Amino acid sequence: MLLGRVIGTVWATKKDEKLEGMKFLIVRAVDTDYKPLANFVVAVDSVGAGAGEIVLIAQGSSGRLTWLTKDKPVDAVIMAIVDKLDIEVPLDEWEEALQ
Amino acid sequence: MLLGRVIGTVWATKKDEKLEGMKFLIVRAVDTDYKPLANFVVAVDSVGAGAGEIVLIAQGSSGRLTWLTKDKPVDAVIMAIVDKLDIEVPLDEWEEALQ
Amino acid sequence: MLLGRVIGTVWATKKDEKLEGMKFLIVRAVDTDYKPLANFVVAVDSVGAGAGEIVLIAQGSSGRLTWLTKDKPVDAVIMAIVDKLDIEVPLDEWEEALQ
Amino acid sequence: MLLGRVIGTVWATKKDEKLEGMKFLIVRAVDTDYKPLANFVVAVDSVGAGAGEIVLIAQGSSGRLTWLTKDKPVDAVIMAIVDKLDIEVPLDEWEEALQ
Amino acid sequence: MLLGRVIGTVWATKKDEKLEGMKFLIVRAVDTDYKPLANFVVAVDSVGAGAGEIVLIAQGSSGRLTWLTKDKPVDAVIMAIVDKLDIEVPLDEWEEALQ
Repeated sequence: MLLGRVIGTVWATKKDEKLEGMKFLIVRAVDTDYKPLANFVVAVDSVGAGAGEIVLIAQGSSGRLTWLTKDKPVDAVIMAIVDKLDIEVPLDEWEEALQ
Repeated sequence: MLLGRVIGTVWATKKDEKLEGMKFLIVRAVDTDYKPLANFVVAVDSVGAGAGEIVLIAQGSSGRLTWLTKDKPVDAVIMAIVDKLDIEVPLDEWEEALQ
Repeated sequence: MLLGRVIGTVWATKKDEKLEGMKFLIVRAVDTDYKPLANFVVAVDSVGAGAGEIVLIAQGSSGRLTWLTKDKPVDAVIMAIVDKLDIEVPLDEWEEALQ
Repeated sequence: MLLGRVIGTVWATKKDEKLEGMKFLIVRAVDTDYKPLANFVVAVDSVGAGAGEIVLIAQGSSGRLTWLTKDKPVDAVIMAIVDKLDIEVPLDEWEEALQ
Repeated sequence: MLLGRVIGTVWATKKDEKLEGMKFLIVRAVDTDYKPLANFVVAVDSVGAGAGEIVLIAQGSSGRLTWLTKDKPVDAVIMAIVDKLDIEVPLDEWEEALQ
């Protein structure tokens, strides 16, 4: 799954009829410190995520396995809202141990 | 889904017979300011998108779940035309808050 | 779909038995001016493409939806030979309009 | 499969109901010397992997083929814990042989 | 398909039970001169490939369509051993023709 932060919403009137009522959110990828990365995706929201929240996104055919997205032409879905991350192997300790 | 802008059309006479009548559009990826990114894809149009319009593209097996692309050998479909984006977490504010 | 140019052929005697008789072509990705990009893929040819031709490639499970590749262990298929591209939003005009 | 190292855990209370009880681990990609690479993924653990361990991850629809992840909206699963790698063609010897 | 060279083996005792008996090989991507590229994948061997050999890899759901990998949680399979490549459009000639 991709870790990201909800930064906005896409409005689209003209769309495949199977997509009526879905909310398309813009999610920017983040690192494990929640700092923004370069890439972003547009994902359907299946869990009531709001702007600013950190979320998990399932992509590809797995993006169609929520109650909301079954058999729909969407390739990314928000399937969890992240409370927190526990980092047990910090990158600086790891790199130090390599030296 | 990928956010992009329709920049042109592909003409192909010799193709898999299941693709007859489909329109193949060239879509360049854009950022959330609609500025062009480096990558582009060729996608089947299922919603009547025109040159210059901002669209959403579903890729992979999800690209075959519109009425037009079912069971066809295509891996990208335009399934929505974007009216506008609401950006609630602008990147500059986000980066400022990190400092 | 990926836009590319056929640059060669792969010969492989020892292979999965379901692949007998298939032609594996090397296709380098191109930009919209047909200039070579860095990446390339090996794809099964389902339309009689020849060296030097510009083609479209469907990847992933969509690569198995031609008459030739059904249920085969291949993840990329040439499903169209490109006659020409019509570019209606040239990149230089687009970038100029942004200034 | 992706080779990576488990570096932490994601906590998410609000999620798709089919995901109850699953453990979401953060896995950073590594090279063949187990040095950290830039990218990471969040993957469901199906084999009891712990922090610091080197693992293999299956992505996409293949990520749903363990006993735990069947029909679930997840696109990455840890399906093996790595004991060791045998490198028979070291990169430096390969590059030397090219000269 | 991805073109690569077998450089080693992954040993993993603790794994999904459906993976018993499979051989996991480390395959580094190569260019059309067989020079090493930056990326590598771990793939199941279905054709008896050995260290140093040049192979083709099918990824994603297509990686599950060999006799060995059907319904298994693996996303990459070696499905052919490459004898040789015929390059009919060399990159240097192509780039020269563009000038």
